[in-house]
Amino acid sequence: MSKKQIAVILSGCGHQDGAEIHEATFTLWAIHKHGADYRCFAPNIMQHHVLNHITGQEMDEQRNVLIESARIARGKVEDLALFDAATVDALVIPGGVGAAKNLCTYAFDGPQCTVNKDVEQAVKAMHQAGKPLGALCIAPVLLAKVLGDITLTIGQDEDTAAQIREMGATHAPTGIGEIAVDQKNKIVSTPCYMLDSRVDQIADGADSLVQALLGFL
Amino acid sequence: MSKKQIAVILSGCGHQDGAEIHEATFTLWAIHKHGADYRCFAPNIMQHHVLNHITGQEMDEQRNVLIESARIARGKVEDLALFDAATVDALVIPGGVGAAKNLCTYAFDGPQCTVNKDVEQAVKAMHQAGKPLGALCIAPVLLAKVLGDITLTIGQDEDTAAQIREMGATHAPTGIGEIAVDQKNKIVSTPCYMLDSRVDQIADGADSLVQALLGFL
Repeated sequence: MSKKQIAVILSGCGHQDGAEIHEATFTLWAIHKHGADYRCFAPNIMQHHVLNHITGQEMDEQRNVLIESARIARGKVEDLALFDAATVDALVIPGGVGAAKNLCTYAFDGPQCTVNKDVEQAVKAMHQAGKPLGALCIAPVLLAKVLGDITLTIGQDEDTAAQIREMGATHAPTGIGEIAVDQKNKIVSTPCYMLDSRVDQIADGADSLVQALLGFL
Repeated sequence: MSKKQIAVILSGCGHQDGAEIHEATFTLWAIHKHGADYRCFAPNIMQHHVLNHITGQEMDEQRNVLIESARIARGKVEDLALFDAATVDALVIPGGVGAAKNLCTYAFDGPQCTVNKDVEQAVKAMHQAGKPLGALCIAPVLLAKVLGDITLTIGQDEDTAAQIREMGATHAPTGIGEIAVDQKNKIVSTPCYMLDSRVDQIADGADSLVQALLGFL
């Protein structure tokens, strides 16, 4: 039997303006650990902005989401515009505020956000094909925006949970390293750095999420 | 008993021009997993260059090693110039070619390389204090240059092993996920991406390395 193929959508490289590096790395780790393979994807667009991760201040630079994502993917990252749901078994979106700045505009527009069209098409195609979807940290808000009536978790933040309900989804509160599983829609989510966590607890969450995703296959 | 404090020296963010993201992340993970704490450090210098991690080509940009390292460290990274060996119990240097481009010039000058003075001082101070040192991937070459007569591994590459011997050190060949332990000098090394490895095998190597380091304490 050939290995299961899991697509991972990255949103840059660094939690303030791109993909959260630990969450993305542990997603890849869990996929390999459980005998599956991954393919990394990212939209070929410019980052919303570039932040100095020490000061949090904007830098006078421009960076491309696809090119920066390659730092996490060690060069092997594909343009999300070419994504074909028929070629993978599941799809995961790690967090980092980049998921809410580059993959959609949730960080700025809340429930009225728009979603990058390549991301939206990939999520919809997987869902319509009955294939499982996973999202870490703040990335589940994007699934709520695209799919509406699903159940997911972003941890315990009441303001974000209220906005998730406003988008038509149900919020399931979770603790550190826990996952929420929407059995009907085959959607798995985990709060990761939405809660104050140790690095190994982020790995636990990603590990449980990937196991649950593979359990659907 | 207070937690053991392990210093981690980063060299940027991305394996071609900075720290290898997976190796650095798994180093932090293993430290937390085994009940210790980490403090990340990096030199406050410009990167040797910035490479597009898809094409490998140089980009017309300049990035600062300390600021880029903060992406991996989630903002908490200290200027290596202020490093005080008395305040930590062990020191680890993850790999990535950044360790051989920004922390020393090995990537360009081989055994005749020079080592960044803050890195050299940190390594020497730890060694003179009898505290353990760890290095992943290509980073052990830097320890060979600074300390000379030690035993370490970079995996199985004969050309690199020959250069390590030229610097006065002994090379111990290792396989995927294995470590080399120099008991006398309290130095632990592991080959990581110097060998073609799965992501979970990189985690195994980092885990074994951190365990061995903590075993010296």
